[in-house]
Amino acid sequence: MELLKERILTDGVVKPGNVLKVDSFLNHQMDIDLINEIGREFRRRFPSEKITKILTIESSGIGIACIAAQYFHVPVVFAKKAQSINIDGEIYHTKVESFTHKKVYDVIVSKKFLGPEDHVLVIDDFLANGCALMGLISLIRDAGATIEGAGIVIEKGFQQGGKLIRETGIHLESLAVIDSMTDDSLTFR
Amino acid sequence: MELLKERILTDGVVKPGNVLKVDSFLNHQMDIDLINEIGREFRRRFPSEKITKILTIESSGIGIACIAAQYFHVPVVFAKKAQSINIDGEIYHTKVESFTHKKVYDVIVSKKFLGPEDHVLVIDDFLANGCALMGLISLIRDAGATIEGAGIVIEKGFQQGGKLIRETGIHLESLAVIDSMTDDSLTFR
Repeated sequence: MELLKERILTDGVVKPGNVLKVDSFLNHQMDIDLINEIGREFRRRFPSEKITKILTIESSGIGIACIAAQYFHVPVVFAKKAQSINIDGEIYHTKVESFTHKKVYDVIVSKKFLGPEDHVLVIDDFLANGCALMGLISLIRDAGATIEGAGIVIEKGFQQGGKLIRETGIHLESLAVIDSMTDDSLTFR
Repeated sequence: MELLKERILTDGVVKPGNVLKVDSFLNHQMDIDLINEIGREFRRRFPSEKITKILTIESSGIGIACIAAQYFHVPVVFAKKAQSINIDGEIYHTKVESFTHKKVYDVIVSKKFLGPEDHVLVIDDFLANGCALMGLISLIRDAGATIEGAGIVIEKGFQQGGKLIRETGIHLESLAVIDSMTDDSLTFR
């Protein structure tokens, strides 16, 4: 998606440790016009009329998923990160390791909001090692729902997540795939 | 807002301890058509052309703020909850006590995204004791920005937050104010 790539080149900041900061337009301050175009592009890439739910994970996926959902006319469900939970049979539960925060999160979705009848599109802001996305996919499988695909805004193509997900046969679309990143240059696939 | 009140009566669930669960349409699963109407109503109640930013707090405020922002044509900034942070002068910082989670959060906003030139509308899903909203207001004041008002989806009118905020003279609009709640009845103001 050219508009997005241009914005990453203009306003993205590369920090030590392969960190790409896009907090001026994507995940702290949010440029709603850009995110609207992102939502429209996700719809173009996932035109299926079967999709019944969009699933994302808190926090930075939520705004993108909500704006995108307007083009799909389906509800958004966001998985919650819980640091301690009672697993009482009312929720789907998985664990996600965050490399950025060096922490393992419990991630939960209420059973009320995902079921075997659902066709689910996952939307998230970043894909790097793939742990969060794998976690969401595992929740969808636990629910017996169908995975229609995963739409990612920025994929770090030099980490393994995208490859792992594509190998499972899941329809993965990343609007910008970064193949390499240094302090003064950034190459898209 | 009648559409919202009807939805609370139909799908809201009162739980012991004055907890109102609206997770089927507002803060776990999100009904995007309803939230779009909520966004439109916030614009009607805050018609000022001066507003430059919408400020909310993660997580459940983000989707509502993003959808609403489409009617204001301004960016959304969401304050982040951090459990341990280095305060390095680059951020505005406050503390917010969550009664639900019995925890004190550090809440931060990057100085890059709020400044004296900004006119800020705060949007959030719930107002109860007012701690989160007071925290956001304190961040706006630290930035030297102007508070244009606060738009809340559901106010628990039997808790003190709304009264405290209105006493400061801030323009507060809550789309549904609940005056009392029992297991089998719910009264709006």
